Formats: sequence, C-alpha cells, structure tokens
Amino acid sequence: MLIGKVVGSVVSTRKCDNLVGNKFMIIEPIPSLKVTSRIVAVDKVGAGIGEIVLIAQGSAARIGCGDEKAPIDAAIVGIIDEGQNLDLE
Amino acid sequence: MLIGKVVGSVVSTRKCDNLVGNKFMIIEPIPSLKVTSRIVAVDKVGAGIGEIVLIAQGSAARIGCGDEKAPIDAAIVGIIDEGQNLDLE
Amino acid sequence: MLIGKVVGSVVSTRKCDNLVGNKFMIIEPIPSLKVTSRIVAVDKVGAGIGEIVLIAQGSAARIGCGDEKAPIDAAIVGIIDEGQNLDLE
Amino acid sequence: MLIGKVVGSVVSTRKCDNLVGNKFMIIEPIPSLKVTSRIVAVDKVGAGIGEIVLIAQGSAARIGCGDEKAPIDAAIVGIIDEGQNLDLE
Amino acid sequence: MLIGKVVGSVVSTRKCDNLVGNKFMIIEPIPSLKVTSRIVAVDKVGAGIGEIVLIAQGSAARIGCGDEKAPIDAAIVGIIDEGQNLDLE
Repeated sequence: MLIGKVVGSVVSTRKCDNLVGNKFMIIEPIPSLKVTSRIVAVDKVGAGIGEIVLIAQGSAARIGCGDEKAPIDAAIVGIIDEGQNLDLE
Repeated sequence: MLIGKVVGSVVSTRKCDNLVGNKFMIIEPIPSLKVTSRIVAVDKVGAGIGEIVLIAQGSAARIGCGDEKAPIDAAIVGIIDEGQNLDLE
Repeated sequence: MLIGKVVGSVVSTRKCDNLVGNKFMIIEPIPSLKVTSRIVAVDKVGAGIGEIVLIAQGSAARIGCGDEKAPIDAAIVGIIDEGQNLDLE
Repeated sequence: MLIGKVVGSVVSTRKCDNLVGNKFMIIEPIPSLKVTSRIVAVDKVGAGIGEIVLIAQGSAARIGCGDEKAPIDAAIVGIIDEGQNLDLE
Repeated sequence: MLIGKVVGSVVSTRKCDNLVGNKFMIIEPIPSLKVTSRIVAVDKVGAGIGEIVLIAQGSAARIGCGDEKAPIDAAIVGIIDEGQNLDLE
C-alpha cells in the first residue's frame, strides 16, 4: 500500500458507466517512501486536498470497497492521522 | 490509475478471438505524473488522438468494462475535461 | 515476494470499514534485493519494529490471509529467521 | 498492454503440469514505449522471432486466453501489422 | 514472466498457516532481461541454488500452482534448459 498527499483532482464527464459518482484525486507519495510517480485514485473516505491518505492498488481497490464491477485500480481507503518513525510530509 | 494523452494507435489483424473489435491506443502519461513509460490501452469511450484520458490497469480493465474474458490489461475508461491543481499538458 | 525490515507504522482512524482492526507497518526492503521504494503492509503475524519480514503483494495479500473483501494490497505473512547466501541487513 | 519484438525463446523440460505445451518467448519492448526491461511471454498466436507483437500481462494473460489455471502472467495476444504515429522499430 | 538464477533462500518459522511447507528462494534476474531488483519466489519444481528458472508473478503464482488460498505472489514454475538468442548467464 502507499501513503501520499492529495494534491489535486480531475473531472471526467464522458466515462464508463461503472465510474459514475466517483471523485478522482491526484496523489503524491510522501517523500519518505521514495516512490517517484504520482497516481490517480478514487476517493472512498471523503478526503480533501492536502490530506495524507492511505492508498490500495490493484484488485483490492475494487473488491475491498464494494465496487467489484468498476474499472478502478487505485482507491483512497483511509486518512492517516499520525506516523511512528515516519515523516508524513 | 493513470492520466495520459492518446498519441497513436496500432492495428493487429491476427489476434486472440476475445480481442476482436477493440481499438488499441498508445498512451503517453502526462508529465506531471512523472511516469516515464508509455502503455497500450483498449479504448472504451471513443477517445481520439490528442485527447487526455483516464486509464485503468490490471484486472479492472477487464472486469470494469464488461470484457471479463478478454486478454486486456489496460483500458481508456474516461475522457478528462479539466484538472484542479494539475497541469494536463 | 519481498523481504524487508519493519521501520515504522501509521495510524488511520477514518478508514474503510473492511480495514478496521488492521495494523499498517512501513517496510524498508533489505538492500540486497535492490528495491528502492518502501511500502505499507498490513501485519498478519504480529511483527514488531526492527524485525525482518516476508511480504506478499497484490491479490495474495487479501486472499491468502482470510481478508478477501478488505482493500489490502500488501501484507506481512512471515518473520524471517535466517537467510542462506543472503545478507538480511 | 505492451508492444515488443520477439527476440528469442527458452525451453523448459521440468515445469508445472499446467504449462505443458506452451512456448516461452523473450520480448524486447519497442524503444518508443520507453520500457527498459524485457519480459518472457507465452505465445498464443503463433508468433515468430523478429515479429512485433501485443502483450497482455497479469491475470489477463491467463483468463483472456483460456488458460485460467496455468501459472502464466504474460502472453502474446496479437501480431502488430502497423502503427499510426508510432515507430514500431 | 521472468527468468532468473536461484542465488539463495530464507527460512521463516512464524508465518501464515497457508504458507507452511513452502521453500522461499531468492531469485536474481538474468542480466539480459535488464531487470534490476531481486525477488523472493516459492519453489514449485524442486529448484536448487545456481539453477536458471522461470518465474510466474501475481495471481498466476497462486492459481496456476494449486495454491489458490496461499499468500504467494511469485513462484518458480519451471527449470530453464536452454535459450535461443538469449544469454542465460
């Protein structure tokens, strides 16, 4: 799983039917994970810009969030409150 | 998930039966995602060259688009209209 | 699969229901694997900070640990006791 | 999905039963995709050395090709005839 | 799929129940694949240190080897005898 900051979002009007109602957020992994690329994730917990979040990728993003039939491969599944031995910024 | 620009396409006449009828587009991730490699994705929303699109990868590309039995691991699942705090070009 | 050291943890209060009760650990891959990025993994074996652990990623992290419906894509599935021809530190 | 050139093959006599009858080809991604590593893929379309092919990875390689129970994570699923706005060599 | 040399192994006494009885081998991809990181794979074919093997990753490692419920994401599924147009060392 990945921890990152919500840095933006995108809007898509023309999309697959199974995606209707989802918000697509841009996630910047926190520097201490040493992951260089950003990803796009569907928001499942009501996260806002600037929050530090937990991301599930792959089939876990669909099956673990009640969206088994949606073309989703990454989801925000938690808001991070604090870290032990981890710099969240 | 990934956001990229449709920059080209390929044609395959001899292919697995479950792929017949699909269009294969070449996707260049937008620079602000810092993903370096291009991917090939099946078009599910009628995207054209030059459009900025949303990509689902892995099992989501099959199951989320009604193509459960097709050997597809990446699909264009939306056209991006606009971004908040994200440079789409 | 991956071998890494548990170097930290995070706490998430607001999260998907299927994640309740899990501990999220930060894993630093051991240098001899030459993997540069850290990952977040759910602990299934009672691992503590500083221990060297075995990680399963992808659908294996859900299905192999009795958490089929949880949005988990990485899990600690074993504690490493020793290595043959492998530097664990 | 990936586009690459078939550059070689390997032979395995002692292998899992579900792999019997498959040909294992070495694939070099085409330079314009900017993917650096080669992969090994099972041939599903009768591809030969030097041909430019379409590759499906992950569960799509099993499920999309009628090999649901085989330990296959990459398959050649088409022969590329031509590209639009894409250098195939 | 991946081809690599078995360069070591690890022992884990405290692990998930579904992993009992498996051997965990360290795999170094062969240089001609240009993959930089090593992986850990469960042995399904009786491979020994120094042998060149074929690796399946992801769900294929579980489902293709009769271990559907084990937290395994990489497995040795064949021993490589020879390569055509491929340097195995």
